[in-house]
Amino acid sequence: MVDSELAPDDTIDTENELPENELDEDDHLRPEFIRAVLDAVAAGNDEEARALVGPLHPADIADLFELTPQPDRAALARAVAELLDGDVFAEMNDYVREDLIDALSPTEVADLAAELDTDDAVAIIEDMDEDEQRAVLRALDPDDRAAIEEALSYPEESAGRLMQRELIAVPEHWTVGDVMAYLRGAQELTTDFWEVFVVDPQHKPVGTCALSWILRTPEWVSVADVMQREQTLIPVDMDQEEVALRFQKYALISAAVVDGAGRLVGMITVDDIVHIIQQEAGEDVLRLSGAGEGDINEPIRFTVRTRLTWLVVNLGTAMFAASVVGLFQDTIARFALLAVLMPIVSGMGGNAGTQTLAVVVRALATNQLTSSNTVRMIVREFRIAAANGLSLGLLIGVGTYVVFGNRDLSLVIALAMVINNLVAGLAGVIVPVTLDRFRIDPAVSSAVFVTTMTDTMGFFAFLGLASLWGLGA
Amino acid sequence: MVDSELAPDDTIDTENELPENELDEDDHLRPEFIRAVLDAVAAGNDEEARALVGPLHPADIADLFELTPQPDRAALARAVAELLDGDVFAEMNDYVREDLIDALSPTEVADLAAELDTDDAVAIIEDMDEDEQRAVLRALDPDDRAAIEEALSYPEESAGRLMQRELIAVPEHWTVGDVMAYLRGAQELTTDFWEVFVVDPQHKPVGTCALSWILRTPEWVSVADVMQREQTLIPVDMDQEEVALRFQKYALISAAVVDGAGRLVGMITVDDIVHIIQQEAGEDVLRLSGAGEGDINEPIRFTVRTRLTWLVVNLGTAMFAASVVGLFQDTIARFALLAVLMPIVSGMGGNAGTQTLAVVVRALATNQLTSSNTVRMIVREFRIAAANGLSLGLLIGVGTYVVFGNRDLSLVIALAMVINNLVAGLAGVIVPVTLDRFRIDPAVSSAVFVTTMTDTMGFFAFLGLASLWGLGA
Repeated sequence: MVDSELAPDDTIDTENELPENELDEDDHLRPEFIRAVLDAVAAGNDEEARALVGPLHPADIADLFELTPQPDRAALARAVAELLDGDVFAEMNDYVREDLIDALSPTEVADLAAELDTDDAVAIIEDMDEDEQRAVLRALDPDDRAAIEEALSYPEESAGRLMQRELIAVPEHWTVGDVMAYLRGAQELTTDFWEVFVVDPQHKPVGTCALSWILRTPEWVSVADVMQREQTLIPVDMDQEEVALRFQKYALISAAVVDGAGRLVGMITVDDIVHIIQQEAGEDVLRLSGAGEGDINEPIRFTVRTRLTWLVVNLGTAMFAASVVGLFQDTIARFALLAVLMPIVSGMGGNAGTQTLAVVVRALATNQLTSSNTVRMIVREFRIAAANGLSLGLLIGVGTYVVFGNRDLSLVIALAMVINNLVAGLAGVIVPVTLDRFRIDPAVSSAVFVTTMTDTMGFFAFLGLASLWGLGA
Repeated sequence: MVDSELAPDDTIDTENELPENELDEDDHLRPEFIRAVLDAVAAGNDEEARALVGPLHPADIADLFELTPQPDRAALARAVAELLDGDVFAEMNDYVREDLIDALSPTEVADLAAELDTDDAVAIIEDMDEDEQRAVLRALDPDDRAAIEEALSYPEESAGRLMQRELIAVPEHWTVGDVMAYLRGAQELTTDFWEVFVVDPQHKPVGTCALSWILRTPEWVSVADVMQREQTLIPVDMDQEEVALRFQKYALISAAVVDGAGRLVGMITVDDIVHIIQQEAGEDVLRLSGAGEGDINEPIRFTVRTRLTWLVVNLGTAMFAASVVGLFQDTIARFALLAVLMPIVSGMGGNAGTQTLAVVVRALATNQLTSSNTVRMIVREFRIAAANGLSLGLLIGVGTYVVFGNRDLSLVIALAMVINNLVAGLAGVIVPVTLDRFRIDPAVSSAVFVTTMTDTMGFFAFLGLASLWGLGA
């Protein structure tokens, strides 16, 4: 990767204020602004389009492409081509980026990739077809190619893909003054770093030095005396979700990535982690509902396939629950009011189960629920379910008595409500914890089991008790 | 706040490796380790407890308290009191921390707060009763007290509460060498910074300088020539969720906080934001299911109250949907099979609606869905709903025909399934987008509306069509 060196005449001075007026109060690009850009493009007035887009931050240019309807994106890209640097592509949604990259030649992609740190270059190249990948790699200069090829050799979503290889490593015996002279002298160094890694002769990290400590320490002090020895090392094959949890837990700004032999091979910085933290935390709601990645830029056929798969599985469980109702068809024919009330019992169980499930799935994802407090969690959820079940049972029981004046029916629905709330509370914690123990993502699979239980038990408890009580007999 | 100065003899050298053996492969504290600590405490062997807990990272000590059953926490705190510094409290869950803070005297709390940056000190003090707060503030030295009192004057969850007041600000006319001399000379400065802010004579920020640039630039260059003028300023009253989105969008490490007059009043660093990003992103699943904060350390009576409120609202909507079934009681009495099949139609609508809702709520939260692409999103979800509705309708129609051999019933259920999927898809996007337009959190309120619609329409479409078709007549 080419580093933007900070020679004195190569100063960073963009003169651009954050373009407040293109953005509304929520930091969204204004619809009128987007329309003005697209109108300019449609009218063939590329110069005006560039004048409008030019002042935007790369993240906002990426947003502009995401908010532009898919058929208009290629024309927009051609119009503002000179503004599309690697930073813009790095900020862009995967699907939107793939679309645009497909329209570029391998040489153009290689030019983009060469501008970027390894991690961003890999993000652009990893989703291409193998043929195209090879063409792009051939167009890169040998150093960049080697770095990217090595990154691609690590599993997807691993630390090896996330890390950048541009970092500052210095030997233990240097003084702070040596480090400063090195940083000021060497032209080839990255400028994008927050900590300096101290390594032993085998290139194994022995400590880290925040830049603020280097700046606040006299030059004659040895780095070994100022560095922090306690450090969080990231194995190169660690999953990105684990990496994100470590960054969060230990409030890291950057961390050293080590290979199997413990040698320093790269660095991950927090700005590359922030979107993973956000994505992983936001994924649970999508997975629990079977909405897959939930990416609104995904081609619609993928979305339909993902969601339909989940819906068909749920159709199976709904038919199973319906078959329980089928057992009581005769009772219902004699006393149709049971059919009116039964969805209340099953539905409320579903709601209570979903609450517990949401809490447990989040607690598992954030490492707050571990084997040390599972039993406590089960007891806690049982108590909550008992309190809620009794309250709801009382409410529905009294309500049913007031409306229908049938004491037996009131007792049956109240009792069924209590039972189904307990089922919901217990299933809501035991199902995800068990799946997690077997290393199955609880967010993906729990809801099917839990709602099957609450539906089935809701119908069975209510209709079964009604039959036993002789209602409709 | 007292800064830990980096005098040459005051080196950072803790000699602690990350205690890998207390942690399992998921970075959880091992249950055996926790038991050993608690056994030592129970046996009155405080020394052993301290020896075990001592090597832990502050974040792991905080976890230890969270994983310890509530009744044992006070004894543990007394045993390892000398290890409980401000960092441990800053990492701790709010409820667990409150519990422990309640057990300390105001002077002890003031000693803890004085160790911390303003933001962490505020986090400890903000949840105390007013009397206790005053007592702690009185025990602080005047500078610290003023800083914390000012922070407390900003609204909760605002940038003013999050920011720290310890930062480095330098005038525009300084050279890089001036900055370095200042950093090395002044004893009172914080060591916890990643960027230097450049301010004009009115103390308004005009640019920022990453430390790496300062280290890589010759000393005679002016900071005005090396600073980045394009910067993201955070208004002091901005909500923390907006702050988190800005940090993420622009990949910030730290950002200047400005007051109404545009003057620099504080700094927010990314490590304070990471847990907010995680929390805000993870909240949607909890809010959609009505599980409140979903904090497993919350006192159980709060949890019951939050969840029960939501369940009672849903009981109301379930009764409303049941009343729709009530309209068709006679039809059901004549043809009880309708009661068996009707939950399938309503339930599948609920599932499809939840999928759409999850995607839309996430897209709104991450600023991917704005007024610029709302119409596109509605069209997209309509197409998905049509594809899924037709597939599910076909499946359930054929299934019903195979099992019950009733052509009319099959047509009715297939048609009802298509209708309810379209209702689900449209409600799933229109409800949250509308709530968001009215500045109501779509994650909190959408699900009630959407499931009411899918339940009601599911019953109404299926039973209504069945009546029209003359089924059970």
